[in-house]
This record gives sequence, C-alpha cells and structure tokens, in this order.
Amino acid sequence: MSDSPLDVVGIGNAIVDVLTQADEAFLVTHDLAKGTMTLIDGNRAEELYAAMGPGLEVSGGSAANTMAGLASLGGNGAFIGKVRNDQLGGIFQHDIRAAGVAFETPVATGGPPTARCLIFVTPDAQRTMNTFLGAAVELGSEDLDEAAIGRAKVTYMEGYLWDPPNAKAAFQAAARIAHDAGRKVSLTLSDPFCVERHRDSFLELIGGHVDILFANEAEIRALYQVDDFDRALQEVRGHCEIAALTRGEKGSVVLA
Amino acid sequence: MSDSPLDVVGIGNAIVDVLTQADEAFLVTHDLAKGTMTLIDGNRAEELYAAMGPGLEVSGGSAANTMAGLASLGGNGAFIGKVRNDQLGGIFQHDIRAAGVAFETPVATGGPPTARCLIFVTPDAQRTMNTFLGAAVELGSEDLDEAAIGRAKVTYMEGYLWDPPNAKAAFQAAARIAHDAGRKVSLTLSDPFCVERHRDSFLELIGGHVDILFANEAEIRALYQVDDFDRALQEVRGHCEIAALTRGEKGSVVLA
Repeated sequence: MSDSPLDVVGIGNAIVDVLTQADEAFLVTHDLAKGTMTLIDGNRAEELYAAMGPGLEVSGGSAANTMAGLASLGGNGAFIGKVRNDQLGGIFQHDIRAAGVAFETPVATGGPPTARCLIFVTPDAQRTMNTFLGAAVELGSEDLDEAAIGRAKVTYMEGYLWDPPNAKAAFQAAARIAHDAGRKVSLTLSDPFCVERHRDSFLELIGGHVDILFANEAEIRALYQVDDFDRALQEVRGHCEIAALTRGEKGSVVLA
Repeated sequence: MSDSPLDVVGIGNAIVDVLTQADEAFLVTHDLAKGTMTLIDGNRAEELYAAMGPGLEVSGGSAANTMAGLASLGGNGAFIGKVRNDQLGGIFQHDIRAAGVAFETPVATGGPPTARCLIFVTPDAQRTMNTFLGAAVELGSEDLDEAAIGRAKVTYMEGYLWDPPNAKAAFQAAARIAHDAGRKVSLTLSDPFCVERHRDSFLELIGGHVDILFANEAEIRALYQVDDFDRALQEVRGHCEIAALTRGEKGSVVLA
C-alpha cells in the first residue's frame, strides 16, 4: 500500500452477493423472513443455493460497498476484509480494486471459502439476505494494516463485523491504533437484528471508542430499546461526537 | 437424466460472462474491436481482467442462453457443454439447472478453468466480447449424451462450438446420432467472424448434416461471400430444409 493520505479505511466482511428474483411463496417455503439479513452455515447455504433461481454475482459487503461509493465520489479509501484464494475471492479482490479502493489484506490459503450472500429480491423490491460468512470469520487483529489506519482520517467499521468472533478484537485494536494516531473511529449499526445480537458490545464500544456513529431509525431505537425516535436522540446525544441518523422518507438527523 | 421427451438438446460452450461498462477510449487502449467476439488466451484474459472495472458475473454461452430461453417459454431442454470443477463451473451448473434445463455433462477435474467471457459495454449499448474458452475446449464426442440426443426433437448447436478443436468431431457425432434416431439437426452461425474462421466446415456440414439453420444477415452473407441478401437467399435455398434468417429492424425470413 502506498503512503498517500487516506480519507477512510473501511473494515468489514468481504462478501460476494448472489442475487436472484423470488416470489413470496419461496420465502415462506424456505422459512425466510423478508427484508432481514440472516447468518447461515455452509449446509444451509448449499440447500438455499440449490433451491434458488439463476443468480447474478456481484461483489458486496456493507463497508466494502461504502468504500466503493467513497471512491466513486473521488475519496481516497482502503478496505480491510478477508477472502480465500478461490475464484470468488479473486472476483472480490478484482472488483474492489477496480473500484479504486486499496485492498491488501492477506488472503486466506485454507479454511472456508470466500463469503457469499444469497439475496432474494421479491416483486415488492424488498431484499432478503442470507449470509454465509466463510473466510470472513478468519479476519483478526493480525490482518489490520496499522500504517493505513494511522494515516486515514477515519476508520469505518460495519456492525456486521461483530458476527465473526475474531473481528470484535480486531475492531478494538483498530480503534486503538486510530486514536493513538489522533484519527477518528466510525461505526455503522448495519441492521436492527445485528443490534439485537450485539447490543451490549455496541453500547460499550460506542461509549469508549466510536466518534462517528451511523444508524437508521430502526437501528438506533433497537440500540437504546426505545419505541420513540426522540428518546433515541436524547440517548445518543453525548454518547459519541457525531451521530448521523437516517429516517427514510423523513430525511436524516445529524447530531454534532 | 430422466427419460422424459425433450424438445431440444443444445450443445455449446459453457461460459460465465463477466460484464462491465467501458468507454470508447478503453476499447482503443486495449485494442478491442467494438461489437465483435474475440477468442483470447489465459494471459490476455488476466491482462484484460486486471484492466477492467468492477464486474458482474452471469452465466452465458450462446446455446446455453438459448436453452434457458426455451425453458422460460415452457420447452423441455437439455444442455451439453464443459465446465471445470471450480467455483465458476459450479455457478454455471447451478444457473442452467435453475433455469429448468437438464445439464449432466461430466465436469472436467483438471486442465484449464471454466470458460469466461469478458464483456465491455460501451455507452452506445454495444457489447465487445473477449472469450477465454478454458475448460470448454475439453468438450469431445465422449461427452455426448446419446440417449438425450436420441430422444430430442432437435439437436441444436452453436457455430462458436467450432472454435475449440475437439468440438467439431463432437458436432459430427451428435448429428449422426440425431439423424440415426430420425431427429433434426440445427445450427446457428453465431457471428460473422466465426463464419470467416470456419466457412468451409460450415458449408460442408450444412450440406450434409444440418436440417435447420439460423443466421442473421451478416452471417449468411459471410457464409456465401455475397454482398447481397437476396443472393444469399438463393444460395441457402435447397442447402438445408429450413433456414431462419434474422435482419434486425427489417424483420426475418424463414425459408422452408
């Protein structure tokens, strides 16, 4: 990686999406909760893939997509995430670099294959995601590019990163490296169910390590277990330096 | 494969397409002739892939796409083509079966990887294709499912199948099996450049083995080396039982 200044380093699950169209009956038959992201194991991934229609493969992953978006707007970004040395890993690696994002995380040479997310798009344009984390669970503190984190204005992490067990330690280490270098640390909550899975960790980390928090309305309400958006606003104020909260057609609120 | 009656067995190159957008300057820099299909080797495939933008992977191949179209219209079809036992091969295998097409060709367990076609789409909506045939070159007569060919009303082959060297013998064998069973044999010319590469073979095969010929105007003119569509019509009449010729916005002509 060069030593040019970086706007953002993103850390997240490196995933190839497999998209197909499905009807409501398919979701019912296969016990899929519409609009959610569910973690699945290898067997379930094979079973769902066998049942799904012809697919379209495209590199994805929450933070990785954000970094590609940053690069498309002219920002200078790098991504840290784990793929295997298989064809899907090669596709992910190619795509994110081709989008203009530096990506130098060591590739796994053994263990589970590159992560994939089986996505069913229903006629109402909702997407139902089923993620097999595969090689992404191998991401650990040893994969952090300390030099890149040290020279990036912001280190940005996705909440989904809490699902693979080693990545939490990597997040904490990355936050320390960033703060020691006088940089900012940012987190997106990713998904209300992700918040349910990791609420205590998230609250502790936001209080101690996160400068900039991204969430949508459902996620921020889930974090503080409140029904009301205004209550959530009161809770988050003072909990971190900046909170950027999106509300769909109601616009967004930035607290700073 | 079951013993249900088949409308069509398609034989062709089993290919995964990798699509991206590119501007005219990209085509010039990389010496790509707009709108054509060029065969490339593994080194050129790696070089072009490294230069291309983020891609979108989708199973393709001329005859394979036709079989998926047949299935979508309610037809009963099978496909014969060669992939390797790699991830792209698994994607191709899944997609064509998920489209409702039987696909039982033995998978290569060694040799080159599954074929891919790097496709550059320019702002004028033209596509420029670069095909690395990979495992598709391994298709041979031993891969023909004689029972399927024997019970399919039509055996349909793509002209692109002439590019891998062993496939020509497979075509001839397939035509014999089909005719011995009292079935029809069909060929699409695929591409004017493909016709240039294989004109003599095509003329011989159409005279001796092809009952139903598909071509567009450029392809049929290239086949008979005439500038005029009417001249081509006179040539093809009597050369095979049915000729279905497409002419873009001018409609199509079926000679029977």
